[in-house]
Amino acid sequence: MSFINVSTDSHFPIQNLPFGVFSTAEKTSPRVGVAIGDQIVDLSVVAEAGLLDGVSGLNAKEVFSQSTLNQYMSLGKPVWSAVRKALQSLLSADNATLRDNAELRAKAFVAQSAAKMHLPAEIGDYTDFYASKEHATNVGIMFRGKENALMPNWTHLPVGYHGRASSVVVSGTDLVRPNGQRVAVKGEPPVFGPSVRLDYELEMAFLVGTGNQLGEPISLRSAKDHIFGVVVMNDWSARDIQSWEYVPLGPFLGKNFGTTISPWVVSLEALEPFLVEQPKQEPQPLPYLKDNEKAGYDINLEVQIKPSGGSEYHTVTRSNLKYMYWSFKQQLTHHAVNGCNMRTGDLCGSGTISGPTEDSFGSLLELTWSGQKELDLGGIKRKFIEDGDEVLMTGFCQGDGYIVGFGDCVGKILPAVNYDQL
Amino acid sequence: MSFINVSTDSHFPIQNLPFGVFSTAEKTSPRVGVAIGDQIVDLSVVAEAGLLDGVSGLNAKEVFSQSTLNQYMSLGKPVWSAVRKALQSLLSADNATLRDNAELRAKAFVAQSAAKMHLPAEIGDYTDFYASKEHATNVGIMFRGKENALMPNWTHLPVGYHGRASSVVVSGTDLVRPNGQRVAVKGEPPVFGPSVRLDYELEMAFLVGTGNQLGEPISLRSAKDHIFGVVVMNDWSARDIQSWEYVPLGPFLGKNFGTTISPWVVSLEALEPFLVEQPKQEPQPLPYLKDNEKAGYDINLEVQIKPSGGSEYHTVTRSNLKYMYWSFKQQLTHHAVNGCNMRTGDLCGSGTISGPTEDSFGSLLELTWSGQKELDLGGIKRKFIEDGDEVLMTGFCQGDGYIVGFGDCVGKILPAVNYDQL
Repeated sequence: MSFINVSTDSHFPIQNLPFGVFSTAEKTSPRVGVAIGDQIVDLSVVAEAGLLDGVSGLNAKEVFSQSTLNQYMSLGKPVWSAVRKALQSLLSADNATLRDNAELRAKAFVAQSAAKMHLPAEIGDYTDFYASKEHATNVGIMFRGKENALMPNWTHLPVGYHGRASSVVVSGTDLVRPNGQRVAVKGEPPVFGPSVRLDYELEMAFLVGTGNQLGEPISLRSAKDHIFGVVVMNDWSARDIQSWEYVPLGPFLGKNFGTTISPWVVSLEALEPFLVEQPKQEPQPLPYLKDNEKAGYDINLEVQIKPSGGSEYHTVTRSNLKYMYWSFKQQLTHHAVNGCNMRTGDLCGSGTISGPTEDSFGSLLELTWSGQKELDLGGIKRKFIEDGDEVLMTGFCQGDGYIVGFGDCVGKILPAVNYDQL
Repeated sequence: MSFINVSTDSHFPIQNLPFGVFSTAEKTSPRVGVAIGDQIVDLSVVAEAGLLDGVSGLNAKEVFSQSTLNQYMSLGKPVWSAVRKALQSLLSADNATLRDNAELRAKAFVAQSAAKMHLPAEIGDYTDFYASKEHATNVGIMFRGKENALMPNWTHLPVGYHGRASSVVVSGTDLVRPNGQRVAVKGEPPVFGPSVRLDYELEMAFLVGTGNQLGEPISLRSAKDHIFGVVVMNDWSARDIQSWEYVPLGPFLGKNFGTTISPWVVSLEALEPFLVEQPKQEPQPLPYLKDNEKAGYDINLEVQIKPSGGSEYHTVTRSNLKYMYWSFKQQLTHHAVNGCNMRTGDLCGSGTISGPTEDSFGSLLELTWSGQKELDLGGIKRKFIEDGDEVLMTGFCQGDGYIVGFGDCVGKILPAVNYDQL
């Protein structure tokens, strides 16, 4: 228990303590904080007061006044664990140090409602996997027919591709509907204009804490130690642009106009109590990917849409990360098996997390089965995302009397640029 | 003419003046230089002496003591042009300022043989296009058969995909042969181990100088102003890993173990005299990609291999950038048409530049037709790259009595990691 009041439905109890980067109107320089209840602990203030001096290997004053988490994430798991322990102690109800220091408390705590959140990391490279069997099968059927839905490689390796790092934005950033080429009439030449099949993809993503040198793989055994934490991610997708462009080299402009992540990075340590078996892997993976430990996470995921003209959010998807076939550990191990160097701050998306039932499908493409059905959002109908629509994703683990949650990952779509006037 | 002696076969006459980042044993901090003949002009020294004070919008002392070109590239075309003019004047035979200042000359010039070259830019995102019709057709035939060789989208847009920025290395960096999954026997499950079909790809790449904001496209009209310069690039490719993994999301581990670029960035201005018509585009591109100006470059390209155990390089490919179907301008315009934000230092590869004749094929995959033929390198045979082989690429424009060249892009392949001992 913390001396900070945390409601039972809060995503941010003392068991969580996710890291983020924030600023305030009073102090506009972004800095590192940790969420608790509806507050943020300003770690730059706590460090300045010397309260984290006991953590060896950490220059807290420097590290927590940075505008990204990169320097902190590069320090490695022993430091992350020690800081977590120190913060849990500092925030606990029976520790007087911070609790009874009114002056310091006034400076060290900021209401989340008064803070602006920033992208938590400088992302060197962003990779997106395709690790949900249900999603890969659904999309495969629609793009290539039932016979070619799941490619022969899919059950042997976590299929992934490089995405665009520059256009990863933090929750709350509006995005412009992309223009591009699409085939309006099958067999006819493509036309140019705003995407008419704009979609979201419900994903989670991990941030690499410590990387590896080029040419030196990461073993499955050590993979977990390289992962700093996890966020919720919306991998916005323009289906019409994507389906025309993606052969043979993969998605490109259908994706890189924007990818939204939640601002709070939940550490693997906070997720440890929610480890579950991942789906049974058949055929058995090759030895470098074979894992005998629990590597799935029981994280409830949800997508809500507030349609333009509507006044409230409507839940359209309820899924769970436990459906993910290839674990984060397997994704990272595979990514580096050829010697590819991962760097602090790299972002690796899970791919859309769809479950086995229709209401657990993680994209409109699947929910409306490529636009053949409509969703009813309080009387407003949707096949795909329209201008002004807002999409909210969230995730949480249900503990015994508490929640470890991810907060919100929100984005609104603005009308396309009038390209003719450019 | 420069007061610096430049041999007629040098890649770096006063008409070129490519930018790079170098360090020396005496001064190990990397800084910005310009190549001339077999020398480097240390721009940090020239700036410190105040010789570039006349260029408006440039803090030369700060910009040229950076360890990457990013700050300089972000200043934009008017500054690049003014600096080029200032340097051509400073280095010309009839300008006494630097020529007759023996003390300054001793500090300002460094022999290229005494310098260590560094990656010229901090690369935010690296994109690879697929812009040679000959190459796309050749590879398409081998991967998918003659009927599906060129996908329907290929003549409508510059097909491209995101690559890995972290593993882009400067010429001279050894690379480790990747381990990975490959199908050894068709129809059988994949096996794991070192790639047995390691290849190079002859490419050129441009560096983005000034970018665009997320959501704001770049028009074809303005595209050229955003491009700082061009390098030669070897997009190393593990064909066996690639052909197994690449469906449906594109190349991944078959590519991201390493990409080599030449250290000297040749400005678009230096290439201006070598502009030629690009190949005729049929069907006509959509209006946003339609270009009425010359946008191809007549750049001779060459690949040489020094096989392990051999004592010299053997030329295996002679190609030319003029074969590239989609121009750099079209690539950049397409990349940003959906609002994708380009940033200073982004690297965009052309894709393999193959010509119409067999000796102009830009990869071993094409030269040996997927290993069906062997190359004879002075008695040593090769289907693909073996451990210890060195690959050298270069490019040059033939002027009237001078050459504008790119120098060397070299890399050696080291044996794979023994993964079992990891």
